[in-house]
Amino acid sequence: MNTCFDDHDDFSLDDDTLHEECGVFGVLGHPDAAALTALGLHALQHRGQEAAGIVSYDGQQFRSERHLGLVGDHYTDPAMLESLRGSMAMGHVRYSTTGGTVLRNVQPLFAELGVGGIAIAHNGNFTNGLFMRRKLISDGAICQSTSDTEVVLHLIARSRAKTSSDRFIDAISQMEGGYSMIAMTRTKLIAARDPTGIRPLVMGELDGKPIFCSETCALDIIGAKFVRDVENGEVIICEEQPDGSISIDSRKPALKQPERLCLFEYVYFARPDSIVGGRNVYQTRKNMGINLAQEAPVKADVVVPVPDGGTPAAIGYAQESGIPFELGIIRNHYVGRTFIEPTQQIRAFGVKLKHSANRAVISGARVVLIDDSIVRGTTSVKIVQMLREAGAKEVHIRVASPMIYYSDFYGIDTPDRDKLLANNHETLADMCKFIGADSLEFLSIDGLYMAVGGEKRNNALPQFTDHQFTGDYPTRLLDKEHEGEFSKIELLAGNG
Amino acid sequence: MNTCFDDHDDFSLDDDTLHEECGVFGVLGHPDAAALTALGLHALQHRGQEAAGIVSYDGQQFRSERHLGLVGDHYTDPAMLESLRGSMAMGHVRYSTTGGTVLRNVQPLFAELGVGGIAIAHNGNFTNGLFMRRKLISDGAICQSTSDTEVVLHLIARSRAKTSSDRFIDAISQMEGGYSMIAMTRTKLIAARDPTGIRPLVMGELDGKPIFCSETCALDIIGAKFVRDVENGEVIICEEQPDGSISIDSRKPALKQPERLCLFEYVYFARPDSIVGGRNVYQTRKNMGINLAQEAPVKADVVVPVPDGGTPAAIGYAQESGIPFELGIIRNHYVGRTFIEPTQQIRAFGVKLKHSANRAVISGARVVLIDDSIVRGTTSVKIVQMLREAGAKEVHIRVASPMIYYSDFYGIDTPDRDKLLANNHETLADMCKFIGADSLEFLSIDGLYMAVGGEKRNNALPQFTDHQFTGDYPTRLLDKEHEGEFSKIELLAGNG
Amino acid sequence: MNTCFDDHDDFSLDDDTLHEECGVFGVLGHPDAAALTALGLHALQHRGQEAAGIVSYDGQQFRSERHLGLVGDHYTDPAMLESLRGSMAMGHVRYSTTGGTVLRNVQPLFAELGVGGIAIAHNGNFTNGLFMRRKLISDGAICQSTSDTEVVLHLIARSRAKTSSDRFIDAISQMEGGYSMIAMTRTKLIAARDPTGIRPLVMGELDGKPIFCSETCALDIIGAKFVRDVENGEVIICEEQPDGSISIDSRKPALKQPERLCLFEYVYFARPDSIVGGRNVYQTRKNMGINLAQEAPVKADVVVPVPDGGTPAAIGYAQESGIPFELGIIRNHYVGRTFIEPTQQIRAFGVKLKHSANRAVISGARVVLIDDSIVRGTTSVKIVQMLREAGAKEVHIRVASPMIYYSDFYGIDTPDRDKLLANNHETLADMCKFIGADSLEFLSIDGLYMAVGGEKRNNALPQFTDHQFTGDYPTRLLDKEHEGEFSKIELLAGNG
Amino acid sequence: MNTCFDDHDDFSLDDDTLHEECGVFGVLGHPDAAALTALGLHALQHRGQEAAGIVSYDGQQFRSERHLGLVGDHYTDPAMLESLRGSMAMGHVRYSTTGGTVLRNVQPLFAELGVGGIAIAHNGNFTNGLFMRRKLISDGAICQSTSDTEVVLHLIARSRAKTSSDRFIDAISQMEGGYSMIAMTRTKLIAARDPTGIRPLVMGELDGKPIFCSETCALDIIGAKFVRDVENGEVIICEEQPDGSISIDSRKPALKQPERLCLFEYVYFARPDSIVGGRNVYQTRKNMGINLAQEAPVKADVVVPVPDGGTPAAIGYAQESGIPFELGIIRNHYVGRTFIEPTQQIRAFGVKLKHSANRAVISGARVVLIDDSIVRGTTSVKIVQMLREAGAKEVHIRVASPMIYYSDFYGIDTPDRDKLLANNHETLADMCKFIGADSLEFLSIDGLYMAVGGEKRNNALPQFTDHQFTGDYPTRLLDKEHEGEFSKIELLAGNG
Repeated sequence: MNTCFDDHDDFSLDDDTLHEECGVFGVLGHPDAAALTALGLHALQHRGQEAAGIVSYDGQQFRSERHLGLVGDHYTDPAMLESLRGSMAMGHVRYSTTGGTVLRNVQPLFAELGVGGIAIAHNGNFTNGLFMRRKLISDGAICQSTSDTEVVLHLIARSRAKTSSDRFIDAISQMEGGYSMIAMTRTKLIAARDPTGIRPLVMGELDGKPIFCSETCALDIIGAKFVRDVENGEVIICEEQPDGSISIDSRKPALKQPERLCLFEYVYFARPDSIVGGRNVYQTRKNMGINLAQEAPVKADVVVPVPDGGTPAAIGYAQESGIPFELGIIRNHYVGRTFIEPTQQIRAFGVKLKHSANRAVISGARVVLIDDSIVRGTTSVKIVQMLREAGAKEVHIRVASPMIYYSDFYGIDTPDRDKLLANNHETLADMCKFIGADSLEFLSIDGLYMAVGGEKRNNALPQFTDHQFTGDYPTRLLDKEHEGEFSKIELLAGNG
Repeated sequence: MNTCFDDHDDFSLDDDTLHEECGVFGVLGHPDAAALTALGLHALQHRGQEAAGIVSYDGQQFRSERHLGLVGDHYTDPAMLESLRGSMAMGHVRYSTTGGTVLRNVQPLFAELGVGGIAIAHNGNFTNGLFMRRKLISDGAICQSTSDTEVVLHLIARSRAKTSSDRFIDAISQMEGGYSMIAMTRTKLIAARDPTGIRPLVMGELDGKPIFCSETCALDIIGAKFVRDVENGEVIICEEQPDGSISIDSRKPALKQPERLCLFEYVYFARPDSIVGGRNVYQTRKNMGINLAQEAPVKADVVVPVPDGGTPAAIGYAQESGIPFELGIIRNHYVGRTFIEPTQQIRAFGVKLKHSANRAVISGARVVLIDDSIVRGTTSVKIVQMLREAGAKEVHIRVASPMIYYSDFYGIDTPDRDKLLANNHETLADMCKFIGADSLEFLSIDGLYMAVGGEKRNNALPQFTDHQFTGDYPTRLLDKEHEGEFSKIELLAGNG
Repeated sequence: MNTCFDDHDDFSLDDDTLHEECGVFGVLGHPDAAALTALGLHALQHRGQEAAGIVSYDGQQFRSERHLGLVGDHYTDPAMLESLRGSMAMGHVRYSTTGGTVLRNVQPLFAELGVGGIAIAHNGNFTNGLFMRRKLISDGAICQSTSDTEVVLHLIARSRAKTSSDRFIDAISQMEGGYSMIAMTRTKLIAARDPTGIRPLVMGELDGKPIFCSETCALDIIGAKFVRDVENGEVIICEEQPDGSISIDSRKPALKQPERLCLFEYVYFARPDSIVGGRNVYQTRKNMGINLAQEAPVKADVVVPVPDGGTPAAIGYAQESGIPFELGIIRNHYVGRTFIEPTQQIRAFGVKLKHSANRAVISGARVVLIDDSIVRGTTSVKIVQMLREAGAKEVHIRVASPMIYYSDFYGIDTPDRDKLLANNHETLADMCKFIGADSLEFLSIDGLYMAVGGEKRNNALPQFTDHQFTGDYPTRLLDKEHEGEFSKIELLAGNG
Repeated sequence: MNTCFDDHDDFSLDDDTLHEECGVFGVLGHPDAAALTALGLHALQHRGQEAAGIVSYDGQQFRSERHLGLVGDHYTDPAMLESLRGSMAMGHVRYSTTGGTVLRNVQPLFAELGVGGIAIAHNGNFTNGLFMRRKLISDGAICQSTSDTEVVLHLIARSRAKTSSDRFIDAISQMEGGYSMIAMTRTKLIAARDPTGIRPLVMGELDGKPIFCSETCALDIIGAKFVRDVENGEVIICEEQPDGSISIDSRKPALKQPERLCLFEYVYFARPDSIVGGRNVYQTRKNMGINLAQEAPVKADVVVPVPDGGTPAAIGYAQESGIPFELGIIRNHYVGRTFIEPTQQIRAFGVKLKHSANRAVISGARVVLIDDSIVRGTTSVKIVQMLREAGAKEVHIRVASPMIYYSDFYGIDTPDRDKLLANNHETLADMCKFIGADSLEFLSIDGLYMAVGGEKRNNALPQFTDHQFTGDYPTRLLDKEHEGEFSKIELLAGNG
């Protein structure tokens, strides 16, 4: 799969949604706090291309810049970085949807509390966000954004706890779902991960100053050291002390639960060079390809990845099978922000805007096509067709993850279940026929577990969350259970 | 005075301030609601050039467009007007400050309440806004804007009253100061004026549908009929009934007080063709000029207004004195949004960017220069100098309002008291010398009262509020009294 | 008339046209050359609001900034002014058409010649521009703009004369029509006016350095002294000498002809405070009103101008007739750049976007309405209707210029002849009926001549050009005579 | 090398230069001409990211859109594509320099000739462009752009030949250097390649209609068939006939010379899936890697490409050597248009904005690092340092092309010769030391020839042009020979 859960085959644009996939970054006590944050967000750009925001605190005032677009579009302006004064800063990149994005949803969100200002940013999604929002509104809270993150802000503001960190813990303790969160007050930088640890969050260190970010690649870009993962259910509170030193306090307000990191971080989301949960992502993807080659071998002339997502698995498949790895599909890197509202004329050219067949490799060849995942399958249809037009003799699709049957509720934007390929077709043969391939195989659940963790799935106590494949959700789904019970929210539409 | 309380003589730019001068408009039950609102705001543009916002409700959803700039810059786009669907709409224009304006302060403000959405917009200022804001924050409210209007929104959200109109009344009953306010819920359009009636608000009617707006000129532009002033302390609730008819309910929740409209509406703010408090503004300004001619006659060859503010008074002065009215100063109409951040080179040319002497009229003449008011006097210095350079034999300044000694706290942005000309100089002669004129006279308080209301000031129960001249504030000034008591608000700075 | 030859009653947008009304400015030898040019252009902004350009020369390189929009929108940026380095600069403002304006038509135009660079800018229009363009194209010239000014540039480039000034004279000697032109080479500032002197051009002086500009108001804004008019048929060449002094050389390459300044500069175009042809424009307009009062008296209660164009004549009419001058129509100054593409809904409100009736003045009154001119009459229809709705008992229109029967070919954008009111109706009574007024009178030709020059028209040798009224064109109209003979030019359309 | 001749290691921005690398596209007779051109240019985007332009002809008028930015930023707007009406269209993408780009240099260029309009666009560079420009200027031509392409336009305009195609041939016959050119008149689409065939140009066909473009990938994206290469020295004239058919006329006005395609198209420029000169580019790059493995073997654990340029050669090297191919460096795809004006803070992070080490692959490994080429070597220094920091035990650089000693004059932007690594260091050992690698080897000239053409270099009659490596320029370098002889051109600077 080339764009995973954002499978824009038909160029339909996403609605303004409460769900999002994001990246976060925060640093405390460093003179270049905002510049480091900008660089960290740049390294996390793959987690969200829609918008980016940075908030700093200069000892007097919180300063905020939130903008639609890429980090590099805005945060390289020296005047802007200079305006984000102070030795504390945090930032957020937000997932790329095109339609309904408005600035008031861009994080970090900020509130002026009685005890001083607080800014928060969040990767993940709450499964009781709507429930809590309704409760807050009936208690007189005013919601400006459609982001669930604002709910946390209200809970902090209304908490009766004394310190801002206690208020923060009070607030998140009321939330359910997946969240890796960073918060910043006048003196503190706070990081928190949900009890199940669905989304990643790591702690690093630069010049002795603490840093938190979604992935280690954001540490690498600034030359910071990886310290450790923030644990599931852990809240880490860093505070600048009067003597300039920084205290670090770890709390575990929730009952201890086993961590269940989302397997999709390994399958698709995280950057290959990141270390997630102690594992190099590139290596886990290569392992998926190796296991796939063992599970689903095929006689072929070339192993071709759907770039760039399928490339590591394809390298693994090629190494294991001995079939040569070749760039049979060339990706057009300029498509990123282009052709977002294509005309009918251009839409017809479909997949070719992003991918083209490398005819010399494909023509006359039996191709093993490696993709990281398949969601709706419509892109696969077009790629197979493109390869056939380029002269492929056979096209065998090997998918480096299992079949997707279920929606995500933890921050990944998923299409309706009835649009998922696996739900649309009864048998693997039907799917293969729909896609037009000569054969189609998916990696098994155990193959995936082995690739990532070195062990098969422990069905009694799964090591990861794999709900997209199994329906085994690691938390209650309160909003989902009460779907349709609440009256419609008259959400404000428009610019402004 | 040419720009009254926004006396940008030295091109200093205003800070992001809680105070503002504005215009409001609302209409219920008309198919062209948003277009009518855009036109009404255009007619009210003189009350605020910084930003404009419109919110509509289409029976399903509130729709909002808020933009920096003039009404005509944005709200003439057919696509935008079309997106503001529905037969209810309200809008706001905001005073032109340059520096700290950010979109999150632009009105109408909107909140999603338990009983449905509500939008509000406001002309005026609360004298207990900061006090109430502090109280709300300590109760867990989150403030996103620096606008006091948001305080009202929170009070509505937290009210225990049942209906949205009762909540609205509950909220404004806690506020002190000057406010002319419009609110809109899913079925209601609400208009309210503070108990003293400091700022104007009128009711009109088009095709049988109610309209509220700051001045009658906004009715004229759309061919609507003037119905009556909203009374001081009155809340008018218009509601669409199931049968399509519109009920109109007038309430007076506050104790009856005498109305005291702000005299500065007549002196400077309102458009000359508007009817404010039942009086044609142009006629009151001519009367000021007539009274000024009687109070402060002078032998001269020409009566010259400082355009455009001084023109009606100059016509009155000329008619009363028999000295010919001439355009001795020409205004450059293109300066409006230009040269807002002038270079040092250009700044030195000062007043000439906006005004130029009409040498043929001025040269060799004894000039009576009529201005509507004088704030700091720095513009007057430059105009007198310009007239002298153009050959004026004598320059006699006659100001069509009294000396300004006091700050405003009801929505007019005033410079610090120690910057006011009248506070800077001991005697009229000193002021005259500072300005460089041959003589200087101000209209008396009674002369102003006579011009506007036909009677002298009733000192026991003044017919208007004239606090800028007299220090006689019509309300308590709670925030002012507690100035400096509260801890600093760490207001968020920056874009976003 | 309120907008004269730009009578956008129906909001139709002008085509990309070869014709234009403009303003020019140039200065030699002054360290603040570009800033002075920006200020001068700001003072000339009424001559063109579409675009503005400035070219400077810093001894090494010509530097150019050309932008759509007002002078103040762009040329107040310190960085931009700084980039326009050098002690020589010239600039141009261009008439406001909305549709087809593209940057490649914005002046000054520049060419790299064998003898060095040259920049030129032009107010007026050539009556043989198309003829010369065709000739040049058939000789292999490449035209990038649709501006006739480019034709002059090509003639300069192709001239066999030695010096750049001789080349310039060679070039303009081949052109016919009306032109006031400024050119700049590496050492020279050149000013030229056509043999008939149709458009104005004056010479001034600041700190001993020569300045040329369209009107004296551009001298006043920078405190420069008026020296004299550039004479019709004169070319003035200013050159910086090695010793830093500036030589000024006046040449008259054309046969001596009597000057015939365009009367429309007095009627409508020039700023009231400018001295054009030695006459104060405001005074000539007041005279028009005085003469109009004598020629066409009427019993009435108030004299009301159509602002701002009709104001000086209304003051004259009021003074002569003894009927009081009142602001019966209020102009909305924010309409300038607003509502340029109005929706159908808004268009219906027509004239009210710009003008509103001051009901208190108008209601029950017999109104003398003074306009500077009438072109198509459609605006007049709407204004009369607006006054009647405001309660006017009688509306008598008095126009401070004669009836317009003919097109202009010297730089004024005129509608088709068959759209002119005077050509559409047989009698004055018909026109009056069309407009809906109680009476309608125009100033006579002699009344206009008397107002401007103090003498009646010398029919043998008219003192001015009055072709719009009389059809007596001061030059040959070569392009017009050969209209339709040439094959269509496949002018490039689009942005870029 | 990662960015070849645009080695922006130090983020210095290019000057406004006469040199450029570009892509061209043209189609005749197809109803979707403009949309096809937009798609073709999108596929050619790698040849130029600075600006893109399209000109169409609709039977009445030429229409042009030229914009800075990517194809997808502008040409996907349905309204814009619709405005580019007609069944003929051509376009151009221009190389990405940041500083001095101004719209007047963006192609296609257009001229209105006596025989009708003509548009031209050009990939390559003339070696006598300045010489011809000087000649034209002294003959009275006016040059608006700094693009040599304009010189051709002038020569066409001044040609005495009768037909537009003869004029075109007349014009290009006077030019020397490398050019692949497309021209469009009212009825003709013309394609031309210089006598040596330095830059590529191919002919395709869609629905029976002719297409010309720089590379075959622009045919693939629209499903067009490859017909043949335009031959060196060939001019192909396609003309729509009255009956709707299209005539195709091939002419060879120049003396027959052997073709010498630029080897850098294979090394770096062309897209891997393109067929250039009959050869699949990907395959030639793999061959370079294979030959490199034979010429310069090394004991190592992993073969790592500098992505994306070095990837095909790395695959070849890995296959030949048996050392596993791994993604040891991850490319950040969002850097494209980001961080173009980095602050000092961010600049210090250098290469990491674009590349990051995949620590798990690199740590403890002996790395063979494959780059496509090395220009200045400064990027290589940083990449080696990054790999060492990531724990590489050894870093052996293998470059898939020979050492670069000479500048290009045929459309490739090259740094000054004294900045080239090969000229800066005496021995390979010195270079290796400078870069900090354990070993450094370059592919031999013969190795490159073998990889591309299957034969060693024929020194008597080289099969390709390899002047960057050998100094053997395929044409005269007239401008270079006369460098400094001409007086400076006072090129216009600034925006507009």
